[in-house]
Formats: sequence, structure tokens, C-alpha cells
Amino acid sequence: MNVEIFGYIAAILTTAAFLPQLIKTLKTKKADDVSLITLIMFIIGVLCWIIYGYKISSIPILLANLITLILNLLILFSKIYFSKS
Amino acid sequence: MNVEIFGYIAAILTTAAFLPQLIKTLKTKKADDVSLITLIMFIIGVLCWIIYGYKISSIPILLANLITLILNLLILFSKIYFSKS
Repeated sequence: MNVEIFGYIAAILTTAAFLPQLIKTLKTKKADDVSLITLIMFIIGVLCWIIYGYKISSIPILLANLITLILNLLILFSKIYFSKS
Repeated sequence: MNVEIFGYIAAILTTAAFLPQLIKTLKTKKADDVSLITLIMFIIGVLCWIIYGYKISSIPILLANLITLILNLLILFSKIYFSKS
């Protein structure tokens, strides 16, 4: 079995995994149990992956982390918005 | 500035980020707002990263994802345990 396939499945799953969290947060209109520190640390980490991917010219790292960044920013904004209302 | 430094900071942050979530879940004894589908997808994805890291003999990929796996399994088990009690 091709080794690369595990890398692609891994990248797709660890990126797409945040979509159900975003949908759940938008549906239930709350994310109190989701750690704010986790979200902030993860977003800064993903930003570093994007810089790293850009510097080493890796399209897969760049692409996967851009989608992860957008999804996690939306989860963060939703959490803050719903905690205020 | 060294390019590799961004890779290391990224790996440390996107791994350690799950520790505050685990601590929060253990403290509040609930993780209802944390998506179960997100956790399961993410854990399967991280398992694929571990297989990929092993196959390409990448210690950083292997190490970072092993810690991420353990932290996310503990979050998953805590969520299931507290949702039942």
C-alpha cells in the first residue's frame, strides 16, 4: 500500500474534523465546554504551520492548514459571540 | 530567521493545545459542547499521521502525533465518562 495515502487521509481527516465542531456550535448556539486557551494555542500553531509551509513551498501543508485556520477561527468567533449573547 | 523554528513552534503549539481542553473537561466534569464526531475524526486522522510518520521514519511527526493522540483519547474518554454520570 502506498505510504503517501496515509499522509493524505491524515491531512484530510485532521482538517475536516473541525467542521462538525463548527456545525454543532452554530446549531446549539453555545461552546462553553470548548476551551478558549486550546482554540487560541491551536490557531497560533496553525499560523506557524502556514508560515512554515509557505517558507518550504509545501502546497499540502499550506492548503490543509489554511482550511484548518478558517474553521478554527469560525469556531472561536462563534464561541465568543454566543457566550456574549 | 531559521525556517525550521516555525515548524517546531507549530508542532509544539498544535500538540500542547489539547492539554487545556483536557484540564477544562476534568475540572468542569463535562464536555457536552465538544463535538464527538470531531474527536473521532481527529483521532483517526492522528492515527494515520502516526502510520505515515512511522513509514517515512519521521521522529517529529511520530512524536508530536503520539502526544496529540494520547491527549485526544483522554478528552474523548472523559467526555463519554462524564456524559454518562
